[in-house]
Amino acid sequence: MNEFTLIDRYFRALDTGRSDVLVGIGDDAAILAPTTEAMAVCTDTLVADVHFLPDDDPFDIGFKSLAVNLSDLAAMGANPRWAMINLVMPAIDESWLEGFCRGFSELAGRHGVSLIGGDTTRGPLSISVQAGGTLNPERSLRRDAARVGQAVYLGGPVGDGYLGLQVARDAYRPDDEDRDYLLGRMRRPEPAVGQGAALSGIARAAIDVSDGLLADLGHVLDASGGLGAVITLDSRMFSPAAQRYLDTGGGASDLITGGDDYVLCFTVEPGDRAALEDACRRGDFEAVHIGVVTSGDGIEVRDRFGNSITTVSAGYRHFDNA
Amino acid sequence: MNEFTLIDRYFRALDTGRSDVLVGIGDDAAILAPTTEAMAVCTDTLVADVHFLPDDDPFDIGFKSLAVNLSDLAAMGANPRWAMINLVMPAIDESWLEGFCRGFSELAGRHGVSLIGGDTTRGPLSISVQAGGTLNPERSLRRDAARVGQAVYLGGPVGDGYLGLQVARDAYRPDDEDRDYLLGRMRRPEPAVGQGAALSGIARAAIDVSDGLLADLGHVLDASGGLGAVITLDSRMFSPAAQRYLDTGGGASDLITGGDDYVLCFTVEPGDRAALEDACRRGDFEAVHIGVVTSGDGIEVRDRFGNSITTVSAGYRHFDNA
Repeated sequence: MNEFTLIDRYFRALDTGRSDVLVGIGDDAAILAPTTEAMAVCTDTLVADVHFLPDDDPFDIGFKSLAVNLSDLAAMGANPRWAMINLVMPAIDESWLEGFCRGFSELAGRHGVSLIGGDTTRGPLSISVQAGGTLNPERSLRRDAARVGQAVYLGGPVGDGYLGLQVARDAYRPDDEDRDYLLGRMRRPEPAVGQGAALSGIARAAIDVSDGLLADLGHVLDASGGLGAVITLDSRMFSPAAQRYLDTGGGASDLITGGDDYVLCFTVEPGDRAALEDACRRGDFEAVHIGVVTSGDGIEVRDRFGNSITTVSAGYRHFDNA
Repeated sequence: MNEFTLIDRYFRALDTGRSDVLVGIGDDAAILAPTTEAMAVCTDTLVADVHFLPDDDPFDIGFKSLAVNLSDLAAMGANPRWAMINLVMPAIDESWLEGFCRGFSELAGRHGVSLIGGDTTRGPLSISVQAGGTLNPERSLRRDAARVGQAVYLGGPVGDGYLGLQVARDAYRPDDEDRDYLLGRMRRPEPAVGQGAALSGIARAAIDVSDGLLADLGHVLDASGGLGAVITLDSRMFSPAAQRYLDTGGGASDLITGGDDYVLCFTVEPGDRAALEDACRRGDFEAVHIGVVTSGDGIEVRDRFGNSITTVSAGYRHFDNA
């Protein structure tokens, strides 16, 4: 099978023919119709043995390779439209490809994302996906927009990605229900697309939690000119499954430094609280108030009694162990 | 060094701050200003040991990783604007990164391309680059626009990529001048960006020759509904260095089936010959007339005396040997 048969058999069906895609899969480049909105574009790579295991379910790999990119678009407040895939594979494995495309398609279909191009090459297994979406730049959610006094919120629970990885490694053994939930959160993270759109123009700075809450909030504070924050741990930051991990002696620091959560962390001006509540109703999500942006240096984490906790790890960073 | 130091040290300088890039490197996604033109987007991956050798000059790898994408944009008639890089590396090698970025920057600078995002990950060496540019879709050069009776042209010499690879493998040993020329053509191919823009609205179907002239012309004929072509070999299709290869007993079939040339092959309606001559003057290039689109099946290659030559190879295709 050559590259062209491959494209016809597996990828062309993922080009769902959006009217704003003038030329989709199969030419030297895709052509997107002019738009009066701005375009957000992002890319993320998943590498075998780093981000997933080669024998993980290809459905999950396909799903997640798109999810991490849609999560980046969500963190800008963009509405996803299209994606491209660069697939490097050691050899053609039709059942793997079929599963990969089903997983990708499952998530793409939910968000109206059309595959418009890509590339397949022989080599060690890795997947780069690019995604694009539209937004009003005046209402975009940027990393550099945090200001002293803004409230810090979480749009979903953190720590599930970390716990899912521990379960997959057999290093954490919860009951079956928590096990399935945590593995699902790690393998098929649901990008907060609707949430990002609802927060657009209301939240100020935003980021999706991929490196760990503390590391990602740190990126926002760095990009906003070197600000600090005070965060107070709150049980509403964690899923019931993660709460049970804490109840059985697990450390909260694992949950706020582990990565792979793909929930939004964002800041809101104190005066915009009513608008935020309205956005939560429209977007059907809960925003958990976890702290405040300060002029200080670094992130101080407090327990629910207000006691300061020293946090050492700055979350997972690529290459630190390379 | 972590991913963020890496971005600051090497990649941020490649974000040259175009006014139509509202948010560049460093956020969850880049934001491109609205445009009244359509946007062409493409992507291509280079994998170590497949497309280059791990100890090749990183300058060349950086240059070529962008060149192959700008060549795709040129084949649509688009004006390049921005690029993203996904870099998978086994470990941080600062001198390699420095060379890679210099090579990328050299070509990006020539075409006003700003780096707007990307991703760096640990893993087996490979590079995916995405590029975007603007165009008027009514004037775009598409694979599916070939029609019976159109003339087939080449915008530059074919076969140099093949010969460069033979030189690098020490399988072909020309004199020093040809050697340097052929290696340069393989390692730092010059994308036909100005040519694509000049041909926009004049040529009909177009493709960049990456898989080999016969294979790529075949893609155009397939995409245009299963047409054929008659091609007549002409010394003007080849560089002086390739001509010397033929003079010393080399086969022309090597030159028209080998890949990696990154010149444009395009079709023109017979009535548009004067417009083409005008485009060649404006774009400062020569268009070599090599044949005609027919209603037949397949591509018949004739020698300069009009004798039919049987051509077996359909050019390099990924995975055929996997």
